[in-house]
Amino acid sequence: MDKPLKYAVFGAGSWATAIVKMLSENLDEIGWYMRSVYTKEHLLREQHNPNYLSSVEFHLDQLKLSNDINEVADYADVLIFVIPSAFIYSELEKLNIDISNKTIVSAIKGIVPETELLVGEHFHDVYKVPYENIAVIAGPCHAEEVALERLSYLTISCADQQKASHIAHSLSSDYIKTTISDDVIGIEYAVMLKNIYAIAAGIAHGLGYGDNFQSVLMSNAAREMKRFIKKVHKMKRNINNSAYLGDLLVTGYSVFSRNRMFGNMIGKGYTVKSAQMEMNMVAEGYYATKSAHELNLKNAKKTQMPIINAVYEVLYENKNPKKVFKKLTEKLD
Amino acid sequence: MDKPLKYAVFGAGSWATAIVKMLSENLDEIGWYMRSVYTKEHLLREQHNPNYLSSVEFHLDQLKLSNDINEVADYADVLIFVIPSAFIYSELEKLNIDISNKTIVSAIKGIVPETELLVGEHFHDVYKVPYENIAVIAGPCHAEEVALERLSYLTISCADQQKASHIAHSLSSDYIKTTISDDVIGIEYAVMLKNIYAIAAGIAHGLGYGDNFQSVLMSNAAREMKRFIKKVHKMKRNINNSAYLGDLLVTGYSVFSRNRMFGNMIGKGYTVKSAQMEMNMVAEGYYATKSAHELNLKNAKKTQMPIINAVYEVLYENKNPKKVFKKLTEKLD
Repeated sequence: MDKPLKYAVFGAGSWATAIVKMLSENLDEIGWYMRSVYTKEHLLREQHNPNYLSSVEFHLDQLKLSNDINEVADYADVLIFVIPSAFIYSELEKLNIDISNKTIVSAIKGIVPETELLVGEHFHDVYKVPYENIAVIAGPCHAEEVALERLSYLTISCADQQKASHIAHSLSSDYIKTTISDDVIGIEYAVMLKNIYAIAAGIAHGLGYGDNFQSVLMSNAAREMKRFIKKVHKMKRNINNSAYLGDLLVTGYSVFSRNRMFGNMIGKGYTVKSAQMEMNMVAEGYYATKSAHELNLKNAKKTQMPIINAVYEVLYENKNPKKVFKKLTEKLD
Repeated sequence: MDKPLKYAVFGAGSWATAIVKMLSENLDEIGWYMRSVYTKEHLLREQHNPNYLSSVEFHLDQLKLSNDINEVADYADVLIFVIPSAFIYSELEKLNIDISNKTIVSAIKGIVPETELLVGEHFHDVYKVPYENIAVIAGPCHAEEVALERLSYLTISCADQQKASHIAHSLSSDYIKTTISDDVIGIEYAVMLKNIYAIAAGIAHGLGYGDNFQSVLMSNAAREMKRFIKKVHKMKRNINNSAYLGDLLVTGYSVFSRNRMFGNMIGKGYTVKSAQMEMNMVAEGYYATKSAHELNLKNAKKTQMPIINAVYEVLYENKNPKKVFKKLTEKLD
């Protein structure tokens, strides 16, 4: 490549901030779109994000900050979206430039609630981005540990392996190791499903189940995830690779995961509504549960997915978590 | 079966005590051998084990306690050994009766250091027990949670599936669910290997690696374990079943695991010797590391096992943990 590709990050949450930090180890300039004028001004004044990973200090001469999504989208060749799935639809509606020839990278954990599409599918269907231009960044990676420069591994998946390598290269550093993959859809589903399993882990914990059960739940989740993904997108993959199993574990075992926390509140007796109000947000696994459930209903030959079904019954059918999980325990082994 | 089979447990540690508790939910009488006269007398007086799971109260009319291993071995049809692997060789040397026609169940996590055999192999080679009479009990199961009657799952493995079912039945209760398997050797290796991976997890933690890395380590461990076991005993198995992956997770993620604690001390700078002295014991993964390493050396076509090799270098070659793990991080993905 003669001219270096220009990268931009869309979003200003903790994961977006972590990705800007990773890129800043390699690139001279990074576009960064954020909705909040306050966040942008704070960054310009104090050199750190006021709300997330505030210990991370940025060099302002590396950043092209903007509250105008079109300006940033126009600027960059590689657009990394890190906006929570609950807001991605409305944020993208602000776009009035053609992004179909850009490389689109999703670092969004979940599906687009309004269209019930994977983020990659949404970009393809709505914004006419060809699949070979769509990539996904997967963990296991808590943003907080990136801030501390603790060693973390990322998997960059893209049908076009050269694009995957380029993105991987831009993110790699002393503390970030990357591998590439071509299983975009499988990894997008894994990222979506792990949030449901994290809710399940949280519910179990809230109900008083212990570590022995938790490990059985995770081991069953790994098998259920494999069946589910194989059904929706059959290809050769090792479900125990870090992007699948590793990400499941870091989320399911983390006490900081918002999905696990949401589940924990439900297990402790909060209603779904009150847990959401208390957390002041909707955990991404909430939408994922509905999507996964409906996707499976559509399949002629359904996949056995007792854990997802249990979470669905609790979240959407208002069933008693204690009873539902008691029944679930009979289906695990 | 006309006459009900008589069960006995050998050992008085936490896992032995938990197994006696499980059996006491189902059986009228259980033989229980323990080396310590003090422990036996305390049990007779106070109805609980003085040293482990002391909250568990036993009914003395159900227990046939003895300090004489031959008496208990003679009494029972099903002999469940739960003696730490470091002591099993010398304890068994006290036997002067023929046990070749008994059902031998190993609940021992590790290998016999003196013969470097799996426990099942040791009973077969030294005590002429036919393989169809040898069974294994595997978790994931912390004894402490059994004491609290928190739901736990066990896998009972035996070449003779009827025997496996009988043992499973004797252990099952409201809070213990069981499945059976015929992969005795694979499960014995899994139980042995998970302790090495728990040491690795401990070393990593002691060195300051975070949760992101821990999940990558566990995901690589699951793959390494699969390769290792496939090499030594090829058969159809799902490595993500609870007896393999679940047990790996409950040990690797537990802050109470002695193997993980041992690794953690090494990572923090203790020498192997001083860590063992400080813990007043030798973690079972210590011997397992040597065995696994030597077993792999013997194989013409060796298995890639970077994690076990790293632990071996730290424990047996006196190499610097920080440098060894830095090198290891390059081999994981």
